[in-house]
Amino acid sequence: MGDYIFNQNHLLGIDHLSDKDIDTILETAESFVEISTRDVKKVPALKGKTVVNLFFENSTRTRSSFEIAAKRLSADLINFNSSVSSLKKGESLRDTVLTLEAMNPNIIVIRHSASGSPHYLTTFARSSIVNAGDGFHEHPTQALLDALTMKQVFKTIRGLKVAIVGDILHSRVARSNIILHRKMGNEVSIIGPPSLVPREFEKMGAKVHHNIEEGVKNSDVVMMLRVQSERGAGNYFPSIREYRKHFAINKKVFAMAKKSAIIMHPGPINRDVEIDNTLADSDKSFILQQVTNGIAVRMAVLYLLKGDFNEPIN
Amino acid sequence: MGDYIFNQNHLLGIDHLSDKDIDTILETAESFVEISTRDVKKVPALKGKTVVNLFFENSTRTRSSFEIAAKRLSADLINFNSSVSSLKKGESLRDTVLTLEAMNPNIIVIRHSASGSPHYLTTFARSSIVNAGDGFHEHPTQALLDALTMKQVFKTIRGLKVAIVGDILHSRVARSNIILHRKMGNEVSIIGPPSLVPREFEKMGAKVHHNIEEGVKNSDVVMMLRVQSERGAGNYFPSIREYRKHFAINKKVFAMAKKSAIIMHPGPINRDVEIDNTLADSDKSFILQQVTNGIAVRMAVLYLLKGDFNEPIN
Amino acid sequence: MGDYIFNQNHLLGIDHLSDKDIDTILETAESFVEISTRDVKKVPALKGKTVVNLFFENSTRTRSSFEIAAKRLSADLINFNSSVSSLKKGESLRDTVLTLEAMNPNIIVIRHSASGSPHYLTTFARSSIVNAGDGFHEHPTQALLDALTMKQVFKTIRGLKVAIVGDILHSRVARSNIILHRKMGNEVSIIGPPSLVPREFEKMGAKVHHNIEEGVKNSDVVMMLRVQSERGAGNYFPSIREYRKHFAINKKVFAMAKKSAIIMHPGPINRDVEIDNTLADSDKSFILQQVTNGIAVRMAVLYLLKGDFNEPIN
Repeated sequence: MGDYIFNQNHLLGIDHLSDKDIDTILETAESFVEISTRDVKKVPALKGKTVVNLFFENSTRTRSSFEIAAKRLSADLINFNSSVSSLKKGESLRDTVLTLEAMNPNIIVIRHSASGSPHYLTTFARSSIVNAGDGFHEHPTQALLDALTMKQVFKTIRGLKVAIVGDILHSRVARSNIILHRKMGNEVSIIGPPSLVPREFEKMGAKVHHNIEEGVKNSDVVMMLRVQSERGAGNYFPSIREYRKHFAINKKVFAMAKKSAIIMHPGPINRDVEIDNTLADSDKSFILQQVTNGIAVRMAVLYLLKGDFNEPIN
Repeated sequence: MGDYIFNQNHLLGIDHLSDKDIDTILETAESFVEISTRDVKKVPALKGKTVVNLFFENSTRTRSSFEIAAKRLSADLINFNSSVSSLKKGESLRDTVLTLEAMNPNIIVIRHSASGSPHYLTTFARSSIVNAGDGFHEHPTQALLDALTMKQVFKTIRGLKVAIVGDILHSRVARSNIILHRKMGNEVSIIGPPSLVPREFEKMGAKVHHNIEEGVKNSDVVMMLRVQSERGAGNYFPSIREYRKHFAINKKVFAMAKKSAIIMHPGPINRDVEIDNTLADSDKSFILQQVTNGIAVRMAVLYLLKGDFNEPIN
Repeated sequence: MGDYIFNQNHLLGIDHLSDKDIDTILETAESFVEISTRDVKKVPALKGKTVVNLFFENSTRTRSSFEIAAKRLSADLINFNSSVSSLKKGESLRDTVLTLEAMNPNIIVIRHSASGSPHYLTTFARSSIVNAGDGFHEHPTQALLDALTMKQVFKTIRGLKVAIVGDILHSRVARSNIILHRKMGNEVSIIGPPSLVPREFEKMGAKVHHNIEEGVKNSDVVMMLRVQSERGAGNYFPSIREYRKHFAINKKVFAMAKKSAIIMHPGPINRDVEIDNTLADSDKSFILQQVTNGIAVRMAVLYLLKGDFNEPIN
């Protein structure tokens, strides 16, 4: 391979990517979008490669998205179900991954509750490591599929104002998005109660708002985060009702954004909690297009890490 | 495609099929039976298509049967394990399926405890929906594999007398079979205690019997249903021992059927509860042939919904 | 097929193999090792064959190893998850397997807590049965991958002295290894406390030692077994600390073995329990090479049972 295409061996986080890398991933993903709409949704690009889904947190959506992406590239996909694995027997993450690596996979997709665990794997693993979510740290493929969606709508991923609303503090989706949009030179507003959106985030170049109408004003994108009641989010605000009153997106709030603005959400959504039911299903909502783009972005990442760029992809 | 082959976009239930549709599925399945006996058990008919198993009730047998059927057609099969999915996070069935659909599957095979849920999916989904069992309502591929077995034995699926014995009230297998055989003009007897076989079923064209010898008399097929002790079937009769005395199939009862009659059961069987141990293993029992036919019928259904009829299947 | 290649229909245990069979499996595995290091890790040898993983005990490692092996041979692999299967509904092992067989698999890989269950399956099943661990009885692919590792290091699998240390009594790995090495004419020492290494094992041709330095003396291979605390191993010795003091491998003990000796372990290891941390990661440790060889040995077994020997494998 002569020229630059993609110099990364891993996808650990948006933080590790240059803006050129991000452009490359998005352009590659754009060329993959069409494959999933074909009659035969499959190209031989990763035939004979082994991709392992190593998920230590439950996530049928993200896991299945990687599985479908790998299979549409003709890779062999192994779901290494960690909940029944040797970890129960007290084996360390390092020994689990070394064992897995001894089976010669090409790519390990890992989701783990410990921030930094994908980066830790690269200190001893030979496979390409893809971060599918590490603790409160990063979830890079989510930010990339979000960016692809914005690029499809606005024809560019630069010069945008992105407002992110909700539990920024505990959201790896928010972190990866803030980093990505700051790298692309976009304006980022983060919005929520002070307990969930502390001032410290301004160091990342985001503007902090505790009033949603102010924060959303003039934005191109309003990205709502999920209220994760199942993870005790309620400890950070008085009640769901109170939260909804101040930080949900509804028609009145959304009217503060640009006319051309869109609503995004990483899902699964809580209807009538962080997002009004009717708005979720309106033509302003790109939530399902985000899911569709998840396949294309993950295909692009797997391909850029392990594909043969000298071969046509189909 | 010029002439009629199969006009359905979904397989929701036998109720939605014409007798011509049923004939088409059975004829297609007959041509698929042989594939599973080949040295290379695989045809490219659904290469590049994505089939999702979306099971909300455990069923290794039916799930695996669809998985093997899909793989023998070269489709990509994704097991979307709902027990660990977003449903736990309070997502609705509609949002789960819309999310799944955004990944561009071709076929969603659903098993769900709510009657009518597959039909509900068709009101918003673009994929073909296959009902793999919905509540007490229908289980169409089971009735079709039963019909294929009868057709193999009797060379026709018309002009038969079919006796179904057991918990008709809670059996989607029984409902789908009653509907299928009434559509084909067959005589259907249903047999069991009044608590499990109420008179209302006569509206479906079945004859109700509370005496097994009378009900089985002159039948071509005796189809035994499973006593589902694990689902509290015992609330409907005094004891397993009492049930067995009155509603089990044994040599003496089976002698009432035609000389050429066969015994069927959707499995898993309770030996020496609803069926005598020796009878279950006799040459009158077609229970395992039913399982074999399950693969062929499911291959036929997947193929008729999403195959390219202009291509030879192998 | 003219000449002998492999006459077995099943892989039930090392006990059922001749030394010539073992040589054949190891030679075949040697030719498969390279496939997993290729750019395209896949050969069409088992295309269109169906392999079922039927695991009644959790084992992500062994299950995944068989899954990867099957997929690299282009077979269709079905994980038949027994914990959610009909066994819960009281179905017998025989009926579960008969049902599974009716779906026309070619090979069933079974792990079950009952010793002898794989052999029992062969009394009624038409598929090839592969024992992936049965109770305290055998785990033949583990012993074969261990043997392949030794052959790679010592260029032969004969004329060796093998020391096995730990809970011999409850270890199917130890049993399969003792049988294999006695068949190859190797010297076998088994080492551990009398409660775990009773004299009865001398009937199998192994020499019993309760002192690790004596047992390990002059050996080519020191194979450590896992202390299975999660299975109540602690009932057989006073404490982990006491066990470690007497039966762990460390530099001082290992110095008793030959200069060229290697350390093996079936994994997962307990660092600083049965094996010193530094020794586990030293160049004397072949633990990860064992895992790598697991893929090649399992590919060889699947291929020898169901491949077409008249076709080139790639």
